Amino acid sequence: MFKKRNNIKEIEEGKYLEPKFDKNGLIPVITSDFKNGDILMHAYMNDESLKKTIETKEAHYWSRSRKKIWRKGQTSGFTQVIKEIRIDDDQDSVWLSVDIGNGASCHVGFRSCFYRSIPLGKIKDLEKLEMEFKETEKIFDPKKIYKDEPNPTKL
Amino acid sequence: MFKKRNNIKEIEEGKYLEPKFDKNGLIPVITSDFKNGDILMHAYMNDESLKKTIETKEAHYWSRSRKKIWRKGQTSGFTQVIKEIRIDDDQDSVWLSVDIGNGASCHVGFRSCFYRSIPLGKIKDLEKLEMEFKETEKIFDPKKIYKDEPNPTKL
Repeated sequence: MFKKRNNIKEIEEGKYLEPKFDKNGLIPVITSDFKNGDILMHAYMNDESLKKTIETKEAHYWSRSRKKIWRKGQTSGFTQVIKEIRIDDDQDSVWLSVDIGNGASCHVGFRSCFYRSIPLGKIKDLEKLEMEFKETEKIFDPKKIYKDEPNPTKL
Repeated sequence: MFKKRNNIKEIEEGKYLEPKFDKNGLIPVITSDFKNGDILMHAYMNDESLKKTIETKEAHYWSRSRKKIWRKGQTSGFTQVIKEIRIDDDQDSVWLSVDIGNGASCHVGFRSCFYRSIPLGKIKDLEKLEMEFKETEKIFDPKKIYKDEPNPTKL
């Protein structure tokens, strides 16, 4: 679907999109809030979801738990409007800068999936390290939105 | 090394760090510039590099090409001082917010690895899609810094 990768110099410094999908056909995606740069989520795309995202200007991912293309917000209504898409030097990861309005991106109910901060410095016992919550108010109640859908979080 | 994952609710809403490493022992890492939120790079850590990053407040990754722990800046001098580390809802990805001063994070020489922007909208021919360079001036000359080290970019 995309241009074939056959030259390192072209991949790194060329103007053509030559994304590298891993052996499962996926590329990792970083999604940040265009308003303040906060990271909202980390997910994956296959070739089709990257194409759909470029074309529709709405974030589409590959759901590894449901094994299908997932238009963000199809259940929750919390869509992500694309402000910009960038790709990295070796074209094996993608950065989406998105507008989520007053919505949320996290299936737990928070605005960002990254709502916990890890304390820094010398650690006595890694198992007792206590993280700090940077978000405390949920934007929505996951039980009301997702009802009986299985939780994507796995042990 | 880290606390064992045995309860979804605790993983998602608890205060303990229970990171999930994939079958290669790695967790994906997003690194952003604390000054403006720009994404600098996407990389991976193993358990040891995560521990070292927390303890030393300097970014350590796992180099998949060299198959060893990699203190960012050990060759280039462009270290990343940690301002904050966050982890996501299911604890399978990490966000580092870092200070790189006037340095660079990209082995090609740019400040950010994400120096190219993908045009949006309906695509006639994916192979001819032309990206826009958002950085044009390199911060350093990779040939001078990395000399004979192999390029981490792979086809």
